[in-house]
Amino acid sequence: MAKKAAVAAPAVVATDAPTYTADCQLKFPADYREWVFLTSGLDMSYAPKAGPATHSVFNNVFVNLSAYKVFVKTGTWPDGTMFMLENRAAEGNHSINTRGQTQAIEVTGTELHVKDSTHKTGPDAKDSWAFYNFNDKTSAKAIPRAASCYSCHQDHAAVDTTFVQFYPTLMGIAKEKNVLSPEYLKELAAPAATPAEGAK
Amino acid sequence: MAKKAAVAAPAVVATDAPTYTADCQLKFPADYREWVFLTSGLDMSYAPKAGPATHSVFNNVFVNLSAYKVFVKTGTWPDGTMFMLENRAAEGNHSINTRGQTQAIEVTGTELHVKDSTHKTGPDAKDSWAFYNFNDKTSAKAIPRAASCYSCHQDHAAVDTTFVQFYPTLMGIAKEKNVLSPEYLKELAAPAATPAEGAK
Repeated sequence: MAKKAAVAAPAVVATDAPTYTADCQLKFPADYREWVFLTSGLDMSYAPKAGPATHSVFNNVFVNLSAYKVFVKTGTWPDGTMFMLENRAAEGNHSINTRGQTQAIEVTGTELHVKDSTHKTGPDAKDSWAFYNFNDKTSAKAIPRAASCYSCHQDHAAVDTTFVQFYPTLMGIAKEKNVLSPEYLKELAAPAATPAEGAK
Repeated sequence: MAKKAAVAAPAVVATDAPTYTADCQLKFPADYREWVFLTSGLDMSYAPKAGPATHSVFNNVFVNLSAYKVFVKTGTWPDGTMFMLENRAAEGNHSINTRGQTQAIEVTGTELHVKDSTHKTGPDAKDSWAFYNFNDKTSAKAIPRAASCYSCHQDHAAVDTTFVQFYPTLMGIAKEKNVLSPEYLKELAAPAATPAEGAK
């Protein structure tokens, strides 16, 4: 190994690449709050006839830094990309805030969407991506591919099964790099025709 | 300076320390979206009788990584700490989202709160902190100390004039390190008695 490369490169990979247990469970990335923030939504739903939210929740999305830097340059997600969806309870009238909502200490969910060709979860070429739902901060198995998260992301996400249309700093890059998915472009042309029935 | 300290510090400082123009304007930190995300609120107001928001806005808060790491270890903000408040328009019914609100591409404001003992803006010991409101992505003068942002942060912020009570991952650290401000502790004891009259 060349001395110069040994100084610069490995540090990034070591800190933000997906890692697994011996039985192929993804380890919880403890430092995800130091990843790059992409967006926060409040009380989102993909159901066509969603009722009012019963518990108000912020959805914070983070991506690991090395993947973010590749996307900014190329408009593509490299192997090793990890998105964290952190659901966090919303609260009103906290401290001196008298309107709207702020983020509470309570985390109500942590889900990862990971691109890793060494851990494919199915037979087709798209299967480098897998979803993981963490019940604790240790590890989680990949969600089976029959789950609606896979088909919803496949059918509606703007770039490579990721919801770049909700990431305001990345959408311009996706347009500039001409990487919007055929599914998304089709939906843009007829937005009312393709609601995500039953998805949440 | 001891050799050991000299090795560890400069790399971090070079990438995320405040920098100024020759006439003491703070330069806009172009890479703030790669800083550590602290929280996002929706339609917050500190006014005691705030009416409904006329334009729905998310308030995203970021802090530079080197300062974040010091706070996690010590509960204190080091010289060179920078908070970015990014106000971003909220929108409903974007793409397949049918409920709640998501963050739009339009940025409606960028403000910095910076701790820098080499750029004090007034005579007293607290003056290492200064606020800057950027009208563009170049540079900005410090906001004069008579502005309400200074007195509001001084009177109501949980730690060293920063609103740690709104940063869910930091509040536990502040309690553990016993760094909550006397002003905040007093307000906790009598929450209804000290609204921020006229502040926003």
